[in-house]
Amino acid sequence: MIALLALAAVAAAPSAKPLTPSEIVSKAPAADWQTVSPADLLVIDYEGGGRTVIQLAPDFAPVHVANVRALANAGYWKGSSIYRVQDNYVAQWGVNEGGPPTPAGVVAKPPAEYSRSVKGLTLRPLGYADQYAPRVGHAGGWPVAWNPKTGRANLTHCYGMVGVGRDMAPDTGMGGELYAVIGQAPRHLDRNIALVGRVIEGIENMSALPRGTEALGFYKAGTVARKIASVRLASAMPATDRPSFQVMRTTGATFASYIHARANRQDQFFQVPAGGVDLCNAPVPVRRTPAPSSSR
Amino acid sequence: MIALLALAAVAAAPSAKPLTPSEIVSKAPAADWQTVSPADLLVIDYEGGGRTVIQLAPDFAPVHVANVRALANAGYWKGSSIYRVQDNYVAQWGVNEGGPPTPAGVVAKPPAEYSRSVKGLTLRPLGYADQYAPRVGHAGGWPVAWNPKTGRANLTHCYGMVGVGRDMAPDTGMGGELYAVIGQAPRHLDRNIALVGRVIEGIENMSALPRGTEALGFYKAGTVARKIASVRLASAMPATDRPSFQVMRTTGATFASYIHARANRQDQFFQVPAGGVDLCNAPVPVRRTPAPSSSR
Repeated sequence: MIALLALAAVAAAPSAKPLTPSEIVSKAPAADWQTVSPADLLVIDYEGGGRTVIQLAPDFAPVHVANVRALANAGYWKGSSIYRVQDNYVAQWGVNEGGPPTPAGVVAKPPAEYSRSVKGLTLRPLGYADQYAPRVGHAGGWPVAWNPKTGRANLTHCYGMVGVGRDMAPDTGMGGELYAVIGQAPRHLDRNIALVGRVIEGIENMSALPRGTEALGFYKAGTVARKIASVRLASAMPATDRPSFQVMRTTGATFASYIHARANRQDQFFQVPAGGVDLCNAPVPVRRTPAPSSSR
Repeated sequence: MIALLALAAVAAAPSAKPLTPSEIVSKAPAADWQTVSPADLLVIDYEGGGRTVIQLAPDFAPVHVANVRALANAGYWKGSSIYRVQDNYVAQWGVNEGGPPTPAGVVAKPPAEYSRSVKGLTLRPLGYADQYAPRVGHAGGWPVAWNPKTGRANLTHCYGMVGVGRDMAPDTGMGGELYAVIGQAPRHLDRNIALVGRVIEGIENMSALPRGTEALGFYKAGTVARKIASVRLASAMPATDRPSFQVMRTTGATFASYIHARANRQDQFFQVPAGGVDLCNAPVPVRRTPAPSSSR
């Protein structure tokens, strides 16, 4: 016997059954996908192989994202490392101490871009409760929380989200040290730190690393979890080498069906659908951009 | 600069500040800790070193837990392996196919212990909303959800929780294959599968393994993530070798303070407390039983 543990998504569901979340995603028409700009893709290549790709979120933290782009373009992270891996929390990388001088054009102390005005965002409410904010849902392909009273919205610390390490306030972090969430969503960090994007491929190159043995998952002095060979924007890579990704539009009927299916699992495996879903348990679908011949 | 990312818990907080969650735990009086019975500790030792300790939950899935104990006592898992590691989901281990005959005393098809009556449980409501159940909170040191209308309670799929792999219903899994949650809480599995415990030490021996390259994180045929040398109950180990753990009582004032502090982080690092917390973002504190001389 192979105990499957919710494997039904890969098996053919009886025709009377509603589509599974994976089926909804695989059948989504081309119009439901939006290609990520190459200027919004940060490509981390590791020494010894492996790659992690991050989608940047300039609409939420424009100064921090501009810093990240400038640091990448200056080669600031060449030879840097992942130096902290804390179980069920974060992997953190970049230039921890010392390192090269801050490149020209990088804002040494960005504003606290922990939230922004809801104006200009197309907010799609999730439709279920949240412990951390009056409203949660999605905007422009991102998981967000917002407060109708203050008119402010913020990205949320879901699995894979990338933020800017900072010291105590008023420091906001200049972007040289970044972290990715590799465990239960630490939503208490929302509105306390600048989120600049999310890992859309290769999270396992961070999440599957040995945990650091020192306090808070830091690696022992003189050791690192993984050495970084280069960090580049896809827009700075030769066109033939660039990875390309698409994110599902969060405003369409397909995304609404996906959320509904995540909240009401009726795969063959499930006996009882939950009737609800956590914002961070309904990740916005991402795929590699299909070759022209195979696009729908 | 070392960007600390919420490290304030280890720094001395100004005296005017309320205690941090870690400070509350470290100051908890002995009366707030309950020692786990050695019959409820499942000790997994790996070939090449490393250990994972699981606290069993006989009050929630008695037949499944009895099976797990019988399988351990029969040496059923000797030479078995972790054969599935799916990022942001589960690590799964045990005897996948073939393997030894089912030992005497193991119930081949246990009842569907996916929930139980609330009678006999001391339920402590978390006090915050939940997406998956009408009520959530804690009982006997466990994260639970319950429905006042049906009078049923269930363990919840938080990080580190351990469940019994099963095939399609009416199979409920006999306990030979187990999984641990290593990502965002897959709460949609609640009430659909038997949870039998939680990892209380050594989760990194599962969560930090390379992800399986096949569908759903399975390892390629003929390969495994990690070989298991032995799985024993602490009660079957020589008294001098037994690990011992204590779980914080979830009914006392200390636990209430801990939950309040998790929901309202006011460490030096935080600018804005959330005012709420997810059930799975407030793990019940566990510690190694202090030596008699150092207990308070």
